[in-house]
Amino acid sequence: MGHSIGDHVYGESDIEFLLVDRPRSGSPHRVRRFRADVRLRMDHPEVYRDGDNTRLVPVSSLTNSVLALGARHTGSEPEVYALELAEHFLKGGRRPAEAAEVTLTAREFESLAAEGTRHFTVPGGPRDHAHVTLPRDGDPVVHGGLLDVEFFVTGGATFTGFARDAFTTTTASTDRVFAARLDVRWRYAHADADHRRCRSRAARAVAEAFAGHTSRSSQHTFHHLGTAVLDACPDIAGVRVEGSHLTRALVDLTPFGVENDGRVYTASDHQQSTVAVDVHRGREPERTEEWEIA
Amino acid sequence: MGHSIGDHVYGESDIEFLLVDRPRSGSPHRVRRFRADVRLRMDHPEVYRDGDNTRLVPVSSLTNSVLALGARHTGSEPEVYALELAEHFLKGGRRPAEAAEVTLTAREFESLAAEGTRHFTVPGGPRDHAHVTLPRDGDPVVHGGLLDVEFFVTGGATFTGFARDAFTTTTASTDRVFAARLDVRWRYAHADADHRRCRSRAARAVAEAFAGHTSRSSQHTFHHLGTAVLDACPDIAGVRVEGSHLTRALVDLTPFGVENDGRVYTASDHQQSTVAVDVHRGREPERTEEWEIA
Amino acid sequence: MGHSIGDHVYGESDIEFLLVDRPRSGSPHRVRRFRADVRLRMDHPEVYRDGDNTRLVPVSSLTNSVLALGARHTGSEPEVYALELAEHFLKGGRRPAEAAEVTLTAREFESLAAEGTRHFTVPGGPRDHAHVTLPRDGDPVVHGGLLDVEFFVTGGATFTGFARDAFTTTTASTDRVFAARLDVRWRYAHADADHRRCRSRAARAVAEAFAGHTSRSSQHTFHHLGTAVLDACPDIAGVRVEGSHLTRALVDLTPFGVENDGRVYTASDHQQSTVAVDVHRGREPERTEEWEIA
Amino acid sequence: MGHSIGDHVYGESDIEFLLVDRPRSGSPHRVRRFRADVRLRMDHPEVYRDGDNTRLVPVSSLTNSVLALGARHTGSEPEVYALELAEHFLKGGRRPAEAAEVTLTAREFESLAAEGTRHFTVPGGPRDHAHVTLPRDGDPVVHGGLLDVEFFVTGGATFTGFARDAFTTTTASTDRVFAARLDVRWRYAHADADHRRCRSRAARAVAEAFAGHTSRSSQHTFHHLGTAVLDACPDIAGVRVEGSHLTRALVDLTPFGVENDGRVYTASDHQQSTVAVDVHRGREPERTEEWEIA
Repeated sequence: MGHSIGDHVYGESDIEFLLVDRPRSGSPHRVRRFRADVRLRMDHPEVYRDGDNTRLVPVSSLTNSVLALGARHTGSEPEVYALELAEHFLKGGRRPAEAAEVTLTAREFESLAAEGTRHFTVPGGPRDHAHVTLPRDGDPVVHGGLLDVEFFVTGGATFTGFARDAFTTTTASTDRVFAARLDVRWRYAHADADHRRCRSRAARAVAEAFAGHTSRSSQHTFHHLGTAVLDACPDIAGVRVEGSHLTRALVDLTPFGVENDGRVYTASDHQQSTVAVDVHRGREPERTEEWEIA
Repeated sequence: MGHSIGDHVYGESDIEFLLVDRPRSGSPHRVRRFRADVRLRMDHPEVYRDGDNTRLVPVSSLTNSVLALGARHTGSEPEVYALELAEHFLKGGRRPAEAAEVTLTAREFESLAAEGTRHFTVPGGPRDHAHVTLPRDGDPVVHGGLLDVEFFVTGGATFTGFARDAFTTTTASTDRVFAARLDVRWRYAHADADHRRCRSRAARAVAEAFAGHTSRSSQHTFHHLGTAVLDACPDIAGVRVEGSHLTRALVDLTPFGVENDGRVYTASDHQQSTVAVDVHRGREPERTEEWEIA
Repeated sequence: MGHSIGDHVYGESDIEFLLVDRPRSGSPHRVRRFRADVRLRMDHPEVYRDGDNTRLVPVSSLTNSVLALGARHTGSEPEVYALELAEHFLKGGRRPAEAAEVTLTAREFESLAAEGTRHFTVPGGPRDHAHVTLPRDGDPVVHGGLLDVEFFVTGGATFTGFARDAFTTTTASTDRVFAARLDVRWRYAHADADHRRCRSRAARAVAEAFAGHTSRSSQHTFHHLGTAVLDACPDIAGVRVEGSHLTRALVDLTPFGVENDGRVYTASDHQQSTVAVDVHRGREPERTEEWEIA
Repeated sequence: MGHSIGDHVYGESDIEFLLVDRPRSGSPHRVRRFRADVRLRMDHPEVYRDGDNTRLVPVSSLTNSVLALGARHTGSEPEVYALELAEHFLKGGRRPAEAAEVTLTAREFESLAAEGTRHFTVPGGPRDHAHVTLPRDGDPVVHGGLLDVEFFVTGGATFTGFARDAFTTTTASTDRVFAARLDVRWRYAHADADHRRCRSRAARAVAEAFAGHTSRSSQHTFHHLGTAVLDACPDIAGVRVEGSHLTRALVDLTPFGVENDGRVYTASDHQQSTVAVDVHRGREPERTEEWEIA
């Protein structure tokens, strides 16, 4: 009836698995819990329109590839592993996809104790993040990151001098508690950056920037953290800091004869105030579709 | 240090509330549970960079606006309500945002019984969806949709003739069960379409298309449903069908001396095979940033 | 060190699977999504204390039994299926458990259309529940139920005349909206009751009781629904109604010049007001450990 | 119609809030995120049966009491705070409940940095648990605990010599990885135990016991951890270790020409193998209703 097909993609998401690295050298075992998402952008309209599967590789191949290639990446940074997966999905097969996208997150277990060949571990902090977009005819765009970073400061943050309209009920504060849960993602200037050192420097930079900063708004703080990551790692071309300002309101206890001098706060995170900001190295921000805040 | 700010947005998400419409006419009460997300794209670098809040309207204003304007939209379609909210966020204030995005989902309660001024209701089926993007200097783009549509057919679906690579373990089948959970979203050709009739026709079209179709792949089925929506509603310019093919594998019971002739299937939805496809009216698909599969 | 072992149980939970019934008679296909939990109360202290596994049957046996026995219960009520599973777990093996507990929930798909051997279905309403406790030397206790029943009434409910203490901030209301999400579970007087008819009558009784009732409190309403179930089904010896009163507060919009005459309500369900009540047939409530509100 | 009311309870659950302790001494700030559940067992049949609210205290009083009393427990152990809440709910009011149950969990934030009156913190490890049951005419039963404790060992665990039935597919292993997520709860011998020291000793004992142990089964390991807690803290009369053995299966990669020598494991936790065991001090296990594995 004169319709035409536009974007068409398929993939497999929430592939969960564990990679264990046991180096013979006796150095510590590395245990990471991964979650992988794979998405292929297609140019295969006949699959969708006509049910002609001749050029369609089923998703079992995606899952199995993630697991099989994982065996040789037990010691790799997630960026390297994601990059190899994206390349794998674009070669071979009847006809490759237009572009392959691979997202990996990894929660690393921290060492508790070791005894001979056994290493005892407990789950660690924020999750590592890697995202690779590889077009069929082009260069990969590689992102790294830290997810689920959470901070709280017991006072000293301010929020003053803001604009008001008829619906504003926020009151100014000059000594408030401040909490945020955020994802920090960065775009590497080159695909062959030293991902491990970058991530480690970024993690330290974010913590130090938060601890040495007086917040004037969540926007202000998120930008400040992004700048700190850029300063810490020359291999990073741009940073996005995105997340929620976890509003902590003092509970009014005066109806019950109780003074609440900064002791009892609400904690529900269900409704969220979101902020996202990109910070780029240099004067002119580069605009790329993959990297625009969606 | 020579960094520059790129995209910067803020907003409020997961605002949950209930709208109740009690028409005096005696016609049925309408009860809907809403969830709203608001996002403002800014051109306010000084807020982020310098902590200068002069032009920043706090998020309390966003939440309160959603609730206050809700009082006159208890009988409106979500598209109309979202459009008014987007316009509200771009006018007034010290200086408006670059663009306002409003997403609403609404689960409607179905009538169980009525007695005088009391109407007894129970939660209904798929959620209604509306999304409006309104740039400061431009026309709104309005989407509608149905979320969480779920289907299952007890046999007859096929999956054959597909490509294979070294990692493919899928076997062909000519009479398989087929299940999908999907979101159908469409872009209106005009902002003043008859949203209610569109949604009602789309819902019927999707169900009929599923029931009158032999699936050759989830890609094939998703495209078929999108085409059916386009055929059913002339006000719709393009449709996206996006979701998961819920793989249902026959459990092998032969080790236990039990024949499984199509009775017992796995059901876990945790790892998911995703598909998305756009279908446009006419020959040339329009490419718009807002509408690209992200 | 003179310690002694007390209760010790093991099992497998969240076993998810789908049962499909395709009768040859041409009558409608039945599609249900199950979740099973199995728990065995043991008298095997040496397994725990000494790591002696001689009498321990691994959990793979539990999962496989649930699936294998499922093949002949595609048309059964969950109570019958759960009862056979419990009996299965107490016979055979090196030495049986002290008691077996099986919990099943089933969401039934409703018929959308049928064409030849294909039946198209969509997910239906509340989930069916069955729970069987079978001691090694004793009779089974069988419960049925309906889970996730949700109701909303647009007005007419009251809450007045309640007690107050220094911390009470609730205000009385004589025409409030009222919403509840609840689980209705019942204990059968005999293991061989007509479970299907009971469940169907209970579902209708609950809906009719809610629609024909003026709530004075959630306690009052939950008790009323329990009584209605007892009245509807003579095979039921006792009923528990347990769930949340979903408090819906009118949002105060007067600061924004908007009158909220019963239109806009909060909807968040994250913090919940819980109520549970047992209603028994006859004068004397029977107290059984299995059935006490835990 | 001759029905009678049995157990009837009501309460408020998932009350979330934050307690911040800022001692003037300059010692570290203490930040904890709490979740509280309150449940009152009633002897108020007229509330349920007749809608007579005269003796019913609304749940707003429960929530407000939790928050108002929290202001003086910013530095207390959760057991002490829960105990005071339970006592509060049983005194005053028109007529007290039969029994009050209070459950608290608290996730403590760890210190990141401090500067003057500002203390920067990040979320810490397992959650602290306290549970108090206080009958109207009797002594309180006080439990403490640690929730969400997670362990993984990279090898050396065994599972051999177990029983088999016709449905067993588990294979024996003598060098397997082993992972568990568990809750450790204990009953204090006296209400006035040193809760803080107990919890700290229990946490260390659990970690050391795990790291110095060769698991023969999850039952064996859970019992071993419970014994270690009893040994570590004389104030504890009994321990329950309850949780999931997170089965980690080696993925078979031979179809893809890849040897998987202990590198790639499944990780999904959706279906779970559960184990619970009680260990008591002394010869005779005390059986109390509150403490039976439900």
